[in-house]
Amino acid sequence: MTELKIGVIGGGQLARMMTVPAINLGLTLKVLAEAENSPAALATTMVGDYNNVEVVRAFAKTVDVITFDHEHVPLDVLRALEADGVSVQPPSRALAFAQNKLAMRVRLTELGLPCPDWAEIHDAKSLDAFIVDHNGVAILKTPIGGYDGKGVRVVRSSADASDWLSEATLKKVGGHLLVEEKVDFVRELAQLSARTPSGEFLAWPLVQTTQRNGVCSEVLAPAPGASQATLEQAAEIAKQVSQGLGVTGVLAVEMFETADGRLLINELAMRPHNSGHFSIEGSTTSQFEQHLRAVLDLPLGSTEARAKHAVMVNLLGVDDKNDFLPSYNAALSQVPSAKIHTYAKTARLGRKMGHVTVVADSAETALAEARLAAQILHGN
Amino acid sequence: MTELKIGVIGGGQLARMMTVPAINLGLTLKVLAEAENSPAALATTMVGDYNNVEVVRAFAKTVDVITFDHEHVPLDVLRALEADGVSVQPPSRALAFAQNKLAMRVRLTELGLPCPDWAEIHDAKSLDAFIVDHNGVAILKTPIGGYDGKGVRVVRSSADASDWLSEATLKKVGGHLLVEEKVDFVRELAQLSARTPSGEFLAWPLVQTTQRNGVCSEVLAPAPGASQATLEQAAEIAKQVSQGLGVTGVLAVEMFETADGRLLINELAMRPHNSGHFSIEGSTTSQFEQHLRAVLDLPLGSTEARAKHAVMVNLLGVDDKNDFLPSYNAALSQVPSAKIHTYAKTARLGRKMGHVTVVADSAETALAEARLAAQILHGN
Repeated sequence: MTELKIGVIGGGQLARMMTVPAINLGLTLKVLAEAENSPAALATTMVGDYNNVEVVRAFAKTVDVITFDHEHVPLDVLRALEADGVSVQPPSRALAFAQNKLAMRVRLTELGLPCPDWAEIHDAKSLDAFIVDHNGVAILKTPIGGYDGKGVRVVRSSADASDWLSEATLKKVGGHLLVEEKVDFVRELAQLSARTPSGEFLAWPLVQTTQRNGVCSEVLAPAPGASQATLEQAAEIAKQVSQGLGVTGVLAVEMFETADGRLLINELAMRPHNSGHFSIEGSTTSQFEQHLRAVLDLPLGSTEARAKHAVMVNLLGVDDKNDFLPSYNAALSQVPSAKIHTYAKTARLGRKMGHVTVVADSAETALAEARLAAQILHGN
Repeated sequence: MTELKIGVIGGGQLARMMTVPAINLGLTLKVLAEAENSPAALATTMVGDYNNVEVVRAFAKTVDVITFDHEHVPLDVLRALEADGVSVQPPSRALAFAQNKLAMRVRLTELGLPCPDWAEIHDAKSLDAFIVDHNGVAILKTPIGGYDGKGVRVVRSSADASDWLSEATLKKVGGHLLVEEKVDFVRELAQLSARTPSGEFLAWPLVQTTQRNGVCSEVLAPAPGASQATLEQAAEIAKQVSQGLGVTGVLAVEMFETADGRLLINELAMRPHNSGHFSIEGSTTSQFEQHLRAVLDLPLGSTEARAKHAVMVNLLGVDDKNDFLPSYNAALSQVPSAKIHTYAKTARLGRKMGHVTVVADSAETALAEARLAAQILHGN
């Protein structure tokens, strides 16, 4: 009996949720987790440090393809695997852009894709010049190491960034910083898509996302009131990004929509993404199933919506005492439409602990019900 | 952090498919499997003999509730657990009827529920008398030990059952046999439902099933052309069976539909059932999620259809060389609508190896596509 073995580096909730389509499709999923008792503990076959090439190499020997729960595996580790002949999806040449926001801006700009104004910054002087040129405010980012709002700061003068501009910090983040215009957006959108190594590409409908303290809190699928032109442009951007950067598997392109209807690329994630959790119930093929199919170079599944509207609300940790299970009874009885997902994580402030999805014929109903379920689960 | 731990006895594909909603809902599923490398190996925490009360007792200590992948755990083992204060769902008093077809007929008849004509048989004379009274043919069943067509035989005279009527065999099956009229049915139907220990009851829409060599081969949901009266009668039968027999969790009632529109109860299964696999893609709440919710006494989820039609086709083993994974590429590219499930089992003739579900607006389309995908997966 043939076995297809997918190795996932990282034991977070994304690896956990990849386990589901692996079970359905009869695939073998193995996880290299950072620690015991991770959200993906059920599928964990090795615990170790993904920074250690020998650990990752040993793990890769047990599977047919390597993919990821996060983008933090060092490029030299990935390149060593590729040199060994391991199928790494997405490959290191794509992940290089996910790991370095400056390299990403350079490449997207080369491809002619719409980005906020940006510049490479080495010192206070160049930063202040950019701020002055952009109405006195800008977004400063460390090119490497940031996620969920970390490594990102609003600055109104170089004095707001004197720590990051110190020689020691600059050295740690690659010798320079990335500064971007603070986009005056009307809303944030995300375009989810998938691409196989053979080049098949499929996009889901565009979604609207809401962030709270830099962390995704709500997703509305499809994005309310988006014009056909916007939907097509967003899907085309995702296609050009995935082709131009050589991405395989699921890609999430986070975008700003401006008052005059322009889409500007904010961030990229080369893996299943919080903005795509709605697809578990909302789409014919979930992002987790699609990711497994894509990294195995199997044909992609339909991304058609299975309901008029899907709304996802994150369960974010409030303190270290959050415990959702005791509220399941109340949440499921008061909100029969709620599909509750929890990740078996220890709670802490702002941590992604789970999410609730509601599908409905009306976006308002779906949003109200998903919020109510989340509120009940939070014990409110 | 609270943990809700469900213990499943039996490591077959039903336990495997229960793992999925456990992951989604953040529940802990533990499986007591008969052997290593069962379809539910991922969630297996103990391997041992479910006939051994001490094995099952040790397993029960690790979980909050005990439920089942099959109905074969001896009643005295279950009663010992219940005496220990373990929550066993469904309880032994319900499973007694699933394990003994004669006890089931007695109880259903007491409840006034529609059954084929039946009788308890101790010898050749009483069997021949029943056959003569029923147009020269009858269905003979061993009260215990049968499933998927085993322990069931068409008889035209007691000579067809001389082996079963021997003193030795009669003793093994409980001292008597069950004989039933051979119903002249137009089709077979199955009514899936769930009930909680608190008494909440919900039914899915009635489905039509097709058997091949006594094994389920295709399921059409909903049952084509069923009248409103038939749908309501089927759901009412399931409700009375689950209440009258004290069933908790998922119950499948297999029924014959006669030419004059009567429904007659054929078999019962007190667990998720092959006739309910369509619900994974076809229903708001799958039978596997519902079963976990029911045995934990959580509120039940909506059984509403998520598509006009869902068709499930089983992947039955043809020989010991069946291997579906090499055909995934062809099946998924030629039938993009196919949702393939395989159970990681070693193949043998007639064995349930997996299934394919297709949902569509047309029953004909769904059936044709599901059959095509199954055919491709079989290498034809």
